[in-house]
Amino acid sequence: MRSEFEFIQNIKDRHQLKVIGDDCAVIPLDSQSDQLFTVDLLIENIDFRLAWTTPTLLGHKALAVSLSDIAAMGGTPKYAMLSIGIPEKLWKTSFLDEFYEGWHTLASEFDVELIGGDISRAPSELTIDSIVVGEAPRGRAIRRSGANPGDSIFVTGKLGGAALGLLLLENGEKLGGGSGDPLQMAIAKQLKPMPQITFGKLLLQNELASALIDLSDGLSSDLTHVCGASDVGAIVDESKLPIANGATLEMALGGGEDFELLFTSPLLEIKGATKIGTINERSQGLQLLTSDGPRPLHAEGFRHF
Amino acid sequence: MRSEFEFIQNIKDRHQLKVIGDDCAVIPLDSQSDQLFTVDLLIENIDFRLAWTTPTLLGHKALAVSLSDIAAMGGTPKYAMLSIGIPEKLWKTSFLDEFYEGWHTLASEFDVELIGGDISRAPSELTIDSIVVGEAPRGRAIRRSGANPGDSIFVTGKLGGAALGLLLLENGEKLGGGSGDPLQMAIAKQLKPMPQITFGKLLLQNELASALIDLSDGLSSDLTHVCGASDVGAIVDESKLPIANGATLEMALGGGEDFELLFTSPLLEIKGATKIGTINERSQGLQLLTSDGPRPLHAEGFRHF
Repeated sequence: MRSEFEFIQNIKDRHQLKVIGDDCAVIPLDSQSDQLFTVDLLIENIDFRLAWTTPTLLGHKALAVSLSDIAAMGGTPKYAMLSIGIPEKLWKTSFLDEFYEGWHTLASEFDVELIGGDISRAPSELTIDSIVVGEAPRGRAIRRSGANPGDSIFVTGKLGGAALGLLLLENGEKLGGGSGDPLQMAIAKQLKPMPQITFGKLLLQNELASALIDLSDGLSSDLTHVCGASDVGAIVDESKLPIANGATLEMALGGGEDFELLFTSPLLEIKGATKIGTINERSQGLQLLTSDGPRPLHAEGFRHF
Repeated sequence: MRSEFEFIQNIKDRHQLKVIGDDCAVIPLDSQSDQLFTVDLLIENIDFRLAWTTPTLLGHKALAVSLSDIAAMGGTPKYAMLSIGIPEKLWKTSFLDEFYEGWHTLASEFDVELIGGDISRAPSELTIDSIVVGEAPRGRAIRRSGANPGDSIFVTGKLGGAALGLLLLENGEKLGGGSGDPLQMAIAKQLKPMPQITFGKLLLQNELASALIDLSDGLSSDLTHVCGASDVGAIVDESKLPIANGATLEMALGGGEDFELLFTSPLLEIKGATKIGTINERSQGLQLLTSDGPRPLHAEGFRHF
């Protein structure tokens, strides 16, 4: 679900589409509001493994990734649709009930209403398409393109936890017990991400952010998106990165799916977020300030092909 | 993509959802308009076979099935999104370009704008999720639930052609040449259905229809939906059915995917449509009037499980 930007950019380039870009499509709704649209496709053995998660957690995550796209523009989620391609062996179990329970628990938290969906038998992999429609005050959805040289760069939460969790799962660790255990916290971060809807709305309502994106592809990759859209460069201070307990610098920089928010702001300090660097001129590119001085920072997010 | 009603009905029953039902979800947009939402999931080897079609035709059909849902409420399509799970072997070809070409040609015809999408690698089957957003004047989208005893039942076009086309493809026939050939016309009906947007809008604008649905599951099945939602019975006159050239009565009654419109009206005659029967009381059930008199008509549409 992570390399749509190339495909979309490709279609956009060839067909002069105007509205594609950012985490959501932004469509004027009325004089007061814009409507936000986002869709995320999750395919078994590509985006998730049934052996590593539970149907309930998968239902949660399927909605969470789309809510995170709404959060990434400071929007408020309203409606959702859900398409599910399901292998016959799962259809015969309580899978769908449990999946929907996890989906619905998260939806209730943000007053998201399920308005439709489709279901089909699938010959092989379980496939989920999660669609969310949100709203933002007219013209005020926070884009990727608004960062200016001199702006501070902030992130919410800790980075790299989801990548650590994935590595643990790949190495046979299981989700279970011990909520204080950092390894269990990392696995929970991977399997049950919390979309930062509330913080995104706070940024929008108080006009705190010049640019905003969610950390779905990884810090280096998502910051590259912001810099590209804003036509700026950036320097990230390694010593300032809020690295999740047990995670490495590489996980914090390159690991995807933390679903925290990355934003820029003319302010130097914002409560609830960590300043990790500064936006500078395009010509300076993307840099990481290490104890040995600055070095180039390359986008290292997950790609499908 | 055809048995979503059971799943959706199931979720609806357990969670008291209000807006699910009909061919689209209907959500108030403003004082003038409602918004219509629909989604259709198409999975390789369940809903289509690559050997029987072309990428361009598949792109057309992926959009056509969703546009048909908008037509089934008399709505006007506005925006679309597209999720594609694609096997690596197809990604390396011109498949996506050709697919999008077919999609885009149909979209242009109805001024539908692509506003977003997602793409993922798929380990096995090509998977397409087609999302369309439309509009209708406030409170005037034509529901399945408005049929009244005494109303006439009408269909557009001819019935059973898509089912005949499917049978021909299953038996090794290929799409090609001879546009006047009835067998080729049936194959084209299966592979390149035309959504009845224009006729649906005409029904809405002139307030001609009391209930409306598209023929996606097959006449007997879709008429059962209308009768259930409207709490009425119906009798269909076999001798009046506009059966496609080469198709059988069974194909016309039970075959899906013609994507014509089925509607009821207090009027006795409507230009561009064929009267095939009459709505009556619920207690009379669903009947087929044959040359031997009436017999029960059972829903025989395609089910996934």
